[in-house]
Amino acid sequence: MDLKKLLADVKNGAMSMEEAERQLAKLPYEDIGCAKIDYHRALRVGFPEVIYCEGKTDEEIIRIVQHMRAREIGTIMGTRLAPERFPAIAAACGELTYYEKARIFLAGHPMPVKADSYIAVATGGTADIPVAEEAAVTAEIFGSRVERCYDVGVAGIHRLLSKEDLLRGARAVVAVAGMEGALASVVAGLVAKPVIAVPTSVGYGASFGGIAPLLTMLNSCAAGVSVVNIDNGFGAGYLACMINHM
Amino acid sequence: MDLKKLLADVKNGAMSMEEAERQLAKLPYEDIGCAKIDYHRALRVGFPEVIYCEGKTDEEIIRIVQHMRAREIGTIMGTRLAPERFPAIAAACGELTYYEKARIFLAGHPMPVKADSYIAVATGGTADIPVAEEAAVTAEIFGSRVERCYDVGVAGIHRLLSKEDLLRGARAVVAVAGMEGALASVVAGLVAKPVIAVPTSVGYGASFGGIAPLLTMLNSCAAGVSVVNIDNGFGAGYLACMINHM
Amino acid sequence: MDLKKLLADVKNGAMSMEEAERQLAKLPYEDIGCAKIDYHRALRVGFPEVIYCEGKTDEEIIRIVQHMRAREIGTIMGTRLAPERFPAIAAACGELTYYEKARIFLAGHPMPVKADSYIAVATGGTADIPVAEEAAVTAEIFGSRVERCYDVGVAGIHRLLSKEDLLRGARAVVAVAGMEGALASVVAGLVAKPVIAVPTSVGYGASFGGIAPLLTMLNSCAAGVSVVNIDNGFGAGYLACMINHM
Amino acid sequence: MDLKKLLADVKNGAMSMEEAERQLAKLPYEDIGCAKIDYHRALRVGFPEVIYCEGKTDEEIIRIVQHMRAREIGTIMGTRLAPERFPAIAAACGELTYYEKARIFLAGHPMPVKADSYIAVATGGTADIPVAEEAAVTAEIFGSRVERCYDVGVAGIHRLLSKEDLLRGARAVVAVAGMEGALASVVAGLVAKPVIAVPTSVGYGASFGGIAPLLTMLNSCAAGVSVVNIDNGFGAGYLACMINHM
Amino acid sequence: MDLKKLLADVKNGAMSMEEAERQLAKLPYEDIGCAKIDYHRALRVGFPEVIYCEGKTDEEIIRIVQHMRAREIGTIMGTRLAPERFPAIAAACGELTYYEKARIFLAGHPMPVKADSYIAVATGGTADIPVAEEAAVTAEIFGSRVERCYDVGVAGIHRLLSKEDLLRGARAVVAVAGMEGALASVVAGLVAKPVIAVPTSVGYGASFGGIAPLLTMLNSCAAGVSVVNIDNGFGAGYLACMINHM
Amino acid sequence: MDLKKLLADVKNGAMSMEEAERQLAKLPYEDIGCAKIDYHRALRVGFPEVIYCEGKTDEEIIRIVQHMRAREIGTIMGTRLAPERFPAIAAACGELTYYEKARIFLAGHPMPVKADSYIAVATGGTADIPVAEEAAVTAEIFGSRVERCYDVGVAGIHRLLSKEDLLRGARAVVAVAGMEGALASVVAGLVAKPVIAVPTSVGYGASFGGIAPLLTMLNSCAAGVSVVNIDNGFGAGYLACMINHM
Amino acid sequence: MDLKKLLADVKNGAMSMEEAERQLAKLPYEDIGCAKIDYHRALRVGFPEVIYCEGKTDEEIIRIVQHMRAREIGTIMGTRLAPERFPAIAAACGELTYYEKARIFLAGHPMPVKADSYIAVATGGTADIPVAEEAAVTAEIFGSRVERCYDVGVAGIHRLLSKEDLLRGARAVVAVAGMEGALASVVAGLVAKPVIAVPTSVGYGASFGGIAPLLTMLNSCAAGVSVVNIDNGFGAGYLACMINHM
Amino acid sequence: MDLKKLLADVKNGAMSMEEAERQLAKLPYEDIGCAKIDYHRALRVGFPEVIYCEGKTDEEIIRIVQHMRAREIGTIMGTRLAPERFPAIAAACGELTYYEKARIFLAGHPMPVKADSYIAVATGGTADIPVAEEAAVTAEIFGSRVERCYDVGVAGIHRLLSKEDLLRGARAVVAVAGMEGALASVVAGLVAKPVIAVPTSVGYGASFGGIAPLLTMLNSCAAGVSVVNIDNGFGAGYLACMINHM
Repeated sequence: MDLKKLLADVKNGAMSMEEAERQLAKLPYEDIGCAKIDYHRALRVGFPEVIYCEGKTDEEIIRIVQHMRAREIGTIMGTRLAPERFPAIAAACGELTYYEKARIFLAGHPMPVKADSYIAVATGGTADIPVAEEAAVTAEIFGSRVERCYDVGVAGIHRLLSKEDLLRGARAVVAVAGMEGALASVVAGLVAKPVIAVPTSVGYGASFGGIAPLLTMLNSCAAGVSVVNIDNGFGAGYLACMINHM
Repeated sequence: MDLKKLLADVKNGAMSMEEAERQLAKLPYEDIGCAKIDYHRALRVGFPEVIYCEGKTDEEIIRIVQHMRAREIGTIMGTRLAPERFPAIAAACGELTYYEKARIFLAGHPMPVKADSYIAVATGGTADIPVAEEAAVTAEIFGSRVERCYDVGVAGIHRLLSKEDLLRGARAVVAVAGMEGALASVVAGLVAKPVIAVPTSVGYGASFGGIAPLLTMLNSCAAGVSVVNIDNGFGAGYLACMINHM
Repeated sequence: MDLKKLLADVKNGAMSMEEAERQLAKLPYEDIGCAKIDYHRALRVGFPEVIYCEGKTDEEIIRIVQHMRAREIGTIMGTRLAPERFPAIAAACGELTYYEKARIFLAGHPMPVKADSYIAVATGGTADIPVAEEAAVTAEIFGSRVERCYDVGVAGIHRLLSKEDLLRGARAVVAVAGMEGALASVVAGLVAKPVIAVPTSVGYGASFGGIAPLLTMLNSCAAGVSVVNIDNGFGAGYLACMINHM
Repeated sequence: MDLKKLLADVKNGAMSMEEAERQLAKLPYEDIGCAKIDYHRALRVGFPEVIYCEGKTDEEIIRIVQHMRAREIGTIMGTRLAPERFPAIAAACGELTYYEKARIFLAGHPMPVKADSYIAVATGGTADIPVAEEAAVTAEIFGSRVERCYDVGVAGIHRLLSKEDLLRGARAVVAVAGMEGALASVVAGLVAKPVIAVPTSVGYGASFGGIAPLLTMLNSCAAGVSVVNIDNGFGAGYLACMINHM
Repeated sequence: MDLKKLLADVKNGAMSMEEAERQLAKLPYEDIGCAKIDYHRALRVGFPEVIYCEGKTDEEIIRIVQHMRAREIGTIMGTRLAPERFPAIAAACGELTYYEKARIFLAGHPMPVKADSYIAVATGGTADIPVAEEAAVTAEIFGSRVERCYDVGVAGIHRLLSKEDLLRGARAVVAVAGMEGALASVVAGLVAKPVIAVPTSVGYGASFGGIAPLLTMLNSCAAGVSVVNIDNGFGAGYLACMINHM
Repeated sequence: MDLKKLLADVKNGAMSMEEAERQLAKLPYEDIGCAKIDYHRALRVGFPEVIYCEGKTDEEIIRIVQHMRAREIGTIMGTRLAPERFPAIAAACGELTYYEKARIFLAGHPMPVKADSYIAVATGGTADIPVAEEAAVTAEIFGSRVERCYDVGVAGIHRLLSKEDLLRGARAVVAVAGMEGALASVVAGLVAKPVIAVPTSVGYGASFGGIAPLLTMLNSCAAGVSVVNIDNGFGAGYLACMINHM
Repeated sequence: MDLKKLLADVKNGAMSMEEAERQLAKLPYEDIGCAKIDYHRALRVGFPEVIYCEGKTDEEIIRIVQHMRAREIGTIMGTRLAPERFPAIAAACGELTYYEKARIFLAGHPMPVKADSYIAVATGGTADIPVAEEAAVTAEIFGSRVERCYDVGVAGIHRLLSKEDLLRGARAVVAVAGMEGALASVVAGLVAKPVIAVPTSVGYGASFGGIAPLLTMLNSCAAGVSVVNIDNGFGAGYLACMINHM
Repeated sequence: MDLKKLLADVKNGAMSMEEAERQLAKLPYEDIGCAKIDYHRALRVGFPEVIYCEGKTDEEIIRIVQHMRAREIGTIMGTRLAPERFPAIAAACGELTYYEKARIFLAGHPMPVKADSYIAVATGGTADIPVAEEAAVTAEIFGSRVERCYDVGVAGIHRLLSKEDLLRGARAVVAVAGMEGALASVVAGLVAKPVIAVPTSVGYGASFGGIAPLLTMLNSCAAGVSVVNIDNGFGAGYLACMINHM
């Protein structure tokens, strides 16, 4: 099967959208050597494939961006790109946006915003903000409005309670916390929406790189909480966005 | 504040629904000694409080059911009730339904079914079915249609692929698996809906009581997956139901 | 050195209290074979030695009680005595009080109550009550007033907030919680008194027999919290009592 | 509510202290973007909020100090500030004191000393001294007298025994130890005061970054011991100080 | 090679002891199906092979004893034999001695006692005595004098110090302790002899079945300490005995 | 698709072997409710599906056996069937063979033996034999000759060395060991064939249910070793058999 | 015994190959001080000894290469040599080949290729390629054909399914994966050949340096899977090669 | 008490050795601020106190050496001194010997050698040599002869067997091994002397920084083995030396 031809046929009307979508669901991927780019992912799961930059060389990232651009994919996003690596990538690919706190780059443009609802992203402390930003920027690029609500940890419960209305208005809440990670439980007791808990590696000693908040969140006695990997802001933002678009 | 009077006022129109809802959001709980029953939970988070039976005596469970009934709560559900304990509870409370595989009892009736959508519950193996049933029955009691899809573990991938359409049609998928727990990742690669992963304690040796599938699921390289506690079918069913009703 | 003579001398005035106390601080213990009873502990650390019953046979417990009684010790307390073992101990020793929920027995009488202050004992859930009772009864036997505040877990934060005044009035708070164990942090954010956190083994799956709440409590971002061993109600009650008597 | 006006009213007598204290207990915090400063903490829990510097940028720390100074808070303390970061902070904020071993900075002045009692801080070895200093300096800034008693580990028990009187005279003892961490148990067997145990990450191999002394301390068979996080000198000093001021 | 003939030749002088010892060092074992009995172990490592009874059926134990007796081995010892299993073994083998606390049986007689020196066996608490007895009885059967020194845990350090002379007189000390396991360090600081530390599974919560004292002992800051497996009284007694006979 | 007809067509020549094999590779499974039986597994991976009995009820096992028999599958094997469960299964299914040590049942007959080669199964101790038998019986049922070599642990290395020729003659060696699990490394240093290491849960204390030998085997410094799950004799026997038939 | 003479005798016919091989099987090693080079390994286990470079100094590596070359060993391979160390080694030894991705050097030439079969090496992601290359290059140097099949992780299952034929044609498959590590199970369900699973340390958070994929692979519910150490590409390539040459 | 005077009195005969020894046993230590030097340790446990350099500053080390020299202590040893730190220490203290592989410095001279016996130090691999040297040099400084036996790991068992006589002649064997750590068990099966096992952090992946060999050694099925901390060469050399001097 020829991907270019198919896309051309769709453009010029020789093939219906429905037929193309059906065919593409079979189309596996493009093999560029170091990676197999999964183009039909957008059809299958709703959002384009995202480039996870850790463990990939600059050259590999650049090649993937170039191949995806050649297919005219409008929203190409990369995560976990350290700031010092960005200039080299940008020099080769041109016209990239970089969200520094979130360590995300964007080639192209965000997806259209769904304006009538929003997701909330909350953190326990200031040091959790980078992970929270990864979640927030991911959701924004994929078309969600985001309300940020940072530094509302449970040790000063009144800070959190004063944000109750903001949290209750969201379609989903991403709760980001390190150390003891109790934020997710308290939030889930206040709101009737899915709470996606993100443990962070913020802390020291017996936080064991995020194990402590991970266990706290998994053991939450408040229903409606589910958990993603330690520091996985992307996964949480993606999931919140998916729920927001339902 | 007098809860009975308030409900009476609502019934006879002396108080508007809106005013009552506002007042009830302040109402904390009823203290019955061994427990503090949280009646306004239904208003705050959408579903009535559920009785987690492990660690409670028969007498405590019976008292809680009786108090909730006295408040005319129509859907009272208890989880983790071992089969051998059910007769004593039923003898005291009367008219209970018991879902044996799920170890759930119901006093009253399920909530109205939302018929135009469903959630799917899948398992890796036969031994995971009790946890899956806890999820499925929870969702059914709280008003969701459920499609079961059991014993579709990844070691025989064709079994899972033959269910692709069923899974893709769901609003959310609960993926229940022990041993290596890879089911959630494969499902999330196939469908564009939230996948709620439930690791189970099924397995032996290096599954370490569910740690192996828990880690597998947390590390899923497929976006859209979030995880609940080991064997926590209730939490997964509740969350899937919450998403289904959005 | 002859302990009986020394005590007699004190009684009849042949020795001053000060001299006796000085001598007793050197007196190590009485060796009864299976154990070495530490009589001067009361002088050294303020409370009589307590019998930890797990791992001791009925015969050993009985012998220790009898030896302590022979020394006219008025408050002899044993912890972790399973209910089914109590009748045999009571038959041999006579006149024992048994606190069933706390699994504590008392030979003799509680120490005089310090009436002008109290400690608070709070739990996250109903299933944590036995550990909380071990703390509460220990403190009561050692002369403290105790206010109980059970089932105020953070998933329904309003239950806890409604008890804020009670908690703030205490000299120290014992916070007992299993599952995610976030209670201690929230309490320590509300009150200006030492919070002694007791993780419990209540829970399942990733609570890992109490590791989850233990880590939560150790990582508390609220100052004023310190932690004792999993299920160690005795240790918490003892420490709270020590603080209360300062 | 206007914080400045309230403070002015108190100053000029338009509002009583009692009324102001009541109002402030409702006042949540000041939101400065990256953080939410909790001013009423001093009222609620007795000591001003402390800046935990790890995970915060220099700019964030400077802004927080400046905002707190603007509110005329007299004792502003920051912990975990690496020596190489201090010059930049000091340059921006001016007039800071830096306690190098303890890695603490102070803007303003220590709180008034309670002279009639003291707390003791002991360490097992020389390498534990930085953590001990964090505890000692914290307590001194918050108004306690501190007696240091370093390098008295249990492998040379006579060193510890020679300090018995000093330890027994304290209101509370902070016991800091890495490696096997047995110091806390031996101290608690000698004195009748609360012992706050601080495991340190000093050691190698099977000390696992402080897990070994942490477990030792949690399992202490001596009553009166409670434990804080690994290397958490601040928490221990704060708690000891709180007990000392009761 | 014929074992019986060789032994006969030695008896009647047809073969020298030296030649026989040389030949036997090559003799591997007798294969009895379920086990391979290692007869030349006594030559190679000084003591006869010991039967570890856990995981062996009664029949297997009986067969091994019978085969060893047939070889006229005078000291046949079995460890970890639960009391309820002893009658069946004794009925089949006859003339066995059973040490109940130590869970050891002996067929034959102890080895000759080395009277001019002794080893000491100390425990932290009463519940550690069974493990200590396994060590003590092993050493006695293999020809050592043993001094027991039980219930001298570090929380009451004076009990231990009063035994200093007894401990210093030993050729080696076996220190048995659960919970925090600090006994070994303190003993090693007092005496100039090898201290063999045995962590026990006595304890609860964060002792994690003996991990806590195991780590304590491995991290001992006192030189001269080495550690055996949790509850491995036999290994400690064997090693102490080996050192005593040097 | 009708499986019976297809097989009939092959028998009577109406369909070629190649065509049938191709078709069957598409045939996914038979859904019998509680399980999805994977009939084309035999084609795909060489051996029929095996029933893992743990976590399945007697009824489920019986139904699966009956369905497989109805398909005229000649070798139906079940693993992990506890002895006390066998009579009920046998009563319902008839003509089953039970291998007690291995806890395996067989309905039908073993596959034809490949006589010109063998695999060796070795154990470190007597208590490892049940796991070794699971491996050996699995391999025998699937058509391999097996040489057993039990109780050759490394603490008496001469026992193992005397079996060097037997081990070197095998096509693959299954090395089963608990406690320290060093057997696999030594064997792999002696022979030039794949060594499949099976850690067992035999041991106590710091063997942590098989973690110790598992880690030992994973860290083997001898090439040619690979590892299966703790106590997974079936997996090892299956893999050895697969290698033997290549 | 003189190794050089023996080799000379074989060369000039004074000794038969069989006799030499027999003698060499007794020859233990050459002791060069820092190491004991095991020359008869090639005879005993089929392949020459390999130099594991981590933990060895440049000088030690150079000396070992020089000694092996002096013995005219034609295939000398070193693993885990960081790129920055290669120039120094090459300068001293001359004529080395370096495989950068695999971090392997080769002195001499690969062994003759077995052309009629191949092994497959698959990875879940791009970041797993270095470990996969270690496996692939090892196998190629030891005489196997290798088919690479990279970036076929289970989250996009169609990528893997499209490679089914390639995988089924191999004699053995090496499955390399980090994060959730589910690749091995799915592959083993598709093919009837041994699958050697290599967990990698690729991932973050709850992958815990490779523990997550290690557990996944050990718990694989697909038979035919065995596992090597985390990142142990060499061991997997060696074992696959051994199976390929059977 | 005046230490100098006492030593003078002993020198000039004014005090008997016995009296001096008795007095010194009471003398606790010299307090130099950062440390409490334990001079009577030499009397109490046979060897002078050793300076553990990690976690101490250069200044602290220098001060301790100077104070010990001022007391005319002839053998002052420091461990864990990184090579880059030695020049500064040597410049200040003068006349130091540095053992680079062992990372030990010596001020003064080794203790007199006990020539009629020796201890053996063996390693599994080349990378374990630094830890082994720490053990060997410690033993040599404290007066023992040492035979080194390096790179005799169990994967090439013939290397170890060829050293059997050397090992059997020793008074004690220190067995140093990383990775799978099986060396200790095999050695203990060959010799009748105490085997002190030292796990090392050599390895990768599932060796977990030495946990794998630590567990292997603790679970050794060969009697006579005891274990010290990971990488604790000093502790092993010290203990071996202590046994050698008995």
